[in-house]
Amino acid sequence: MSEFGGFIQDEVANDELDRIEAAYGPLAAAVRELVDATIRSTVPPEEAALALAEVEAVVKRLRAQQMPGPAGVRFNSEGRAWNWGNAVVGLRNAIAPPLEIVHVRSGLAHANVDLGAAYEGPPGLVHGGATALLLDHIMGETAAAAFTRVTFTGTLTMVYRRGTPLGPLRLDARIDREEGRKVWVVASIGDEEGPTVEAEGIFIIPRWAT
Amino acid sequence: MSEFGGFIQDEVANDELDRIEAAYGPLAAAVRELVDATIRSTVPPEEAALALAEVEAVVKRLRAQQMPGPAGVRFNSEGRAWNWGNAVVGLRNAIAPPLEIVHVRSGLAHANVDLGAAYEGPPGLVHGGATALLLDHIMGETAAAAFTRVTFTGTLTMVYRRGTPLGPLRLDARIDREEGRKVWVVASIGDEEGPTVEAEGIFIIPRWAT
Repeated sequence: MSEFGGFIQDEVANDELDRIEAAYGPLAAAVRELVDATIRSTVPPEEAALALAEVEAVVKRLRAQQMPGPAGVRFNSEGRAWNWGNAVVGLRNAIAPPLEIVHVRSGLAHANVDLGAAYEGPPGLVHGGATALLLDHIMGETAAAAFTRVTFTGTLTMVYRRGTPLGPLRLDARIDREEGRKVWVVASIGDEEGPTVEAEGIFIIPRWAT
Repeated sequence: MSEFGGFIQDEVANDELDRIEAAYGPLAAAVRELVDATIRSTVPPEEAALALAEVEAVVKRLRAQQMPGPAGVRFNSEGRAWNWGNAVVGLRNAIAPPLEIVHVRSGLAHANVDLGAAYEGPPGLVHGGATALLLDHIMGETAAAAFTRVTFTGTLTMVYRRGTPLGPLRLDARIDREEGRKVWVVASIGDEEGPTVEAEGIFIIPRWAT
């Protein structure tokens, strides 16, 4: 393995990556269910204590062999890249919904997501910070012109129009304009009645990448 | 149970709440470990498949009895309130670090947090949206003057100074000024070398609360 600016070249063959994803993807999906059940369960404390022992056993099984640190972003020379640990889109990260972003074309993206109990802030509503988490991510990918260049978030402004209900939601993002190394992206998240939060971000193309 | 503006009056006695928290708090902590292990494990796919079956069994145990929807924010007439499902501070939410906020006085707060692999965005760094998630929350609690009033987020602006490393971090928030029903809050998150992200938010006191 070698590293370039934090991106790790990791020569795992594509068919082996497929096998890992086929096992760990469903595991992460089950852990998402467990996160939800841990919040919403009303079984007696004695049952929760049994669940605790069971979860600890699974953790022990998985930690028998593990990476020394975070997963990072990896790629192989067959042209595949993977970021399983990403907090918003990571296949193996149970914190990530995960968001599945559709890049219609460079600079135009959208996503549909269904947010449950784990994303709650005010009663029945999505946590305002969770909407910011998802918006930041889709805007960053949009600024990067569907992965054809590197950009960093400069500033991000969110305007909260009304509460965002838990349940099915849609995100939209597009590049508004560009000027030198700066890229302006506008985005929104909302329900079937329209946007609940609107965002504008300025993303920076680093000097070394131009 | 009755409901006021989404806040649910739920007459569970304090000693029963203590027993529930003593069982479910450690369970959620173990699920946080499981989230991390699911990202970082390198055990073979066959082992991950065994883990999947075990996690599904725990989910089944917990879902034997559960709330019909999200947890919401609840209170009893003994003066206790709990929001176990909150995405940032929820004791029973494995997505929440959880953030433990110290209110020094009304309008001044800070928190220490240690963010691991589950909060990664760029390689080795905290996801920019995850910093926004935590900042939004501490700013909201600060605007609410340590829970003495209700406020809603109006706008939130984040300026990204540099990447936020995974590991131990500190957040600071304070009320900058107030004008009518508007409250300006400034905040930052950073490491031992100083702030990595600075934020300003305008929070609104609803007309019905004045």
